[in-house]
Amino acid sequence: MCTDASALVEAIRSLAVRGAPLLGIAGAYGVALAAARGFEVSEAARALEGARPTAVNLSVGVRRAEAAHQAELVRTGDPAAAAVAALAAARALHREDAEASTRMAAHGLALLDELLPGGGHRILTHCNSGSLVSGGEGTAFAVALAAHRVGRLRRLWVDETRPLLQGARLTAYEAARTGMAYTLLTDNAAGSLFAAGEVDAVLVGADRIAADGSVANKVGSYPLAVLARYHHVPFIVVAPVTTVDPDTPDGASIEVEQRPGYEVTELMAVQGPVAGAGGGMPVAPLGTQAYNPAFDVTPPELVTAIVTEEGVVSPVTAEALAQLCARTGQVATS
Amino acid sequence: MCTDASALVEAIRSLAVRGAPLLGIAGAYGVALAAARGFEVSEAARALEGARPTAVNLSVGVRRAEAAHQAELVRTGDPAAAAVAALAAARALHREDAEASTRMAAHGLALLDELLPGGGHRILTHCNSGSLVSGGEGTAFAVALAAHRVGRLRRLWVDETRPLLQGARLTAYEAARTGMAYTLLTDNAAGSLFAAGEVDAVLVGADRIAADGSVANKVGSYPLAVLARYHHVPFIVVAPVTTVDPDTPDGASIEVEQRPGYEVTELMAVQGPVAGAGGGMPVAPLGTQAYNPAFDVTPPELVTAIVTEEGVVSPVTAEALAQLCARTGQVATS
Repeated sequence: MCTDASALVEAIRSLAVRGAPLLGIAGAYGVALAAARGFEVSEAARALEGARPTAVNLSVGVRRAEAAHQAELVRTGDPAAAAVAALAAARALHREDAEASTRMAAHGLALLDELLPGGGHRILTHCNSGSLVSGGEGTAFAVALAAHRVGRLRRLWVDETRPLLQGARLTAYEAARTGMAYTLLTDNAAGSLFAAGEVDAVLVGADRIAADGSVANKVGSYPLAVLARYHHVPFIVVAPVTTVDPDTPDGASIEVEQRPGYEVTELMAVQGPVAGAGGGMPVAPLGTQAYNPAFDVTPPELVTAIVTEEGVVSPVTAEALAQLCARTGQVATS
Repeated sequence: MCTDASALVEAIRSLAVRGAPLLGIAGAYGVALAAARGFEVSEAARALEGARPTAVNLSVGVRRAEAAHQAELVRTGDPAAAAVAALAAARALHREDAEASTRMAAHGLALLDELLPGGGHRILTHCNSGSLVSGGEGTAFAVALAAHRVGRLRRLWVDETRPLLQGARLTAYEAARTGMAYTLLTDNAAGSLFAAGEVDAVLVGADRIAADGSVANKVGSYPLAVLARYHHVPFIVVAPVTTVDPDTPDGASIEVEQRPGYEVTELMAVQGPVAGAGGGMPVAPLGTQAYNPAFDVTPPELVTAIVTEEGVVSPVTAEALAQLCARTGQVATS
């Protein structure tokens, strides 16, 4: 439980709170919490924004609550009223995210039916993108869940998602809980599924979408996009419009968070004796250096479609994304 | 320590003894051991051959010792002399494997210098293929080691190789021991390295090469081959000629071993309390089904070259492989 904004910053850094849409909601509530407790709001806002660099939703959520706070403060000069306004902004974002989730699911399901008219979809997903990261039922997972509810999901292939195993721990949980037919696999085994013709579509979320349509998402998404292209399988990104960042012109401009090497060199034990610097069980030789980017970037030419709550962008072009943002009032903020 | 052939079968099944060339050597010694102990040799040979289905070297090693045993038995009628002959055959295979390793390293290094004239190679490898799997210094790893010794290896990128982490546990150990500059990464992060232009060549071993040049190797090799092709990076397979199986016409004919799901649903603890069916720490929800092929198959059109002790095959075609086998007396056995 986070009773102040600095505890929330730590929860975000350690990934206790994670997933792009949820980060936005948490960031907004964090600002509201700082305001309610009488802390310096802009200071808390910057700390929250800086907790993780890649997911733009975090920054969007923080700034929305901060702007509501600031506007009310200017209008009334009353800190209590401003805190209430910040909380209202966070609650509105929370509610809108749930609604966006429902609409993404509907648009995504319609797209699947169009791309794969036969039904009986076998969908591969990477990382978790369901209700554990959302005010509603999530992004990519919500689309698979919609297909499941109308009886058109034959199987959800769940990548385990190293190093932190969000697929094995979280997506598998969400799939089991909702009664889907699902199968877990190492990220390495996805290639064999493609080669065997066992994947009809790939569905993933996004942490930031650049203005040119480049998609930052959990590391391992890009190799799936390359495999999908090689096997002529649609690679579909599902994300709310707030994930599109007009301030980031292209993929090369996306800051990719580098995480500690011990996430790779040690196995994180749920229980049991621990010995390594990261609190886990060392598996690699002492002193082993690790390369551990949290995300990778998929260029727009490998993305079949981006599904948002406002509709589907396909083909993915800078112009189509700019139109989408213009329609929804999403503008550059810096 | 294995004091009879059935203990060796179990050691092979549980992967205490693993890696294609070493499996061949172990299989041959297993037959010699059965003969020395007075067991039924052909029965032991079939059990050893059947311990793992994909690596053809196992079968080749077993049959070579068995044939030597049988020939001596027919010639002299003396079981003790036949057992000595089986042991001599195993020792010869062991010695030849070490020699083959040295020659593969030389051919591979020459190929690297030809493909990458600038030097300063940054090589990505998957699974382990060094002295821990060989009578000598291995296959793919031996090539990287040769480059390191002449000062032309800038970095060895080591895929961790899920689910059993042979890269993190074994390749990283071999790299550290030999003083290489190496970096460990999750298999997921390889895509980011390719995209950043940080990989000059991929080097992997092989468990079976079909007559058409399809290569079975550790699961996760095929996605690397697809990534390598997409990024115009050479994908090089290093294996002794005995890995080519003229009896397997193509990739679809290669039997890929499916391993237990708990290798994926549980983390194998080196120490500490254990709870799952596989003796590991469960990470996925109870009852989660897993897809866990041990190998995947890379078609010849994605393989830039196959490096053997007898020279380099490039481009990889059925004709070129048939010529190689004819030159070295490798013939179909069934």
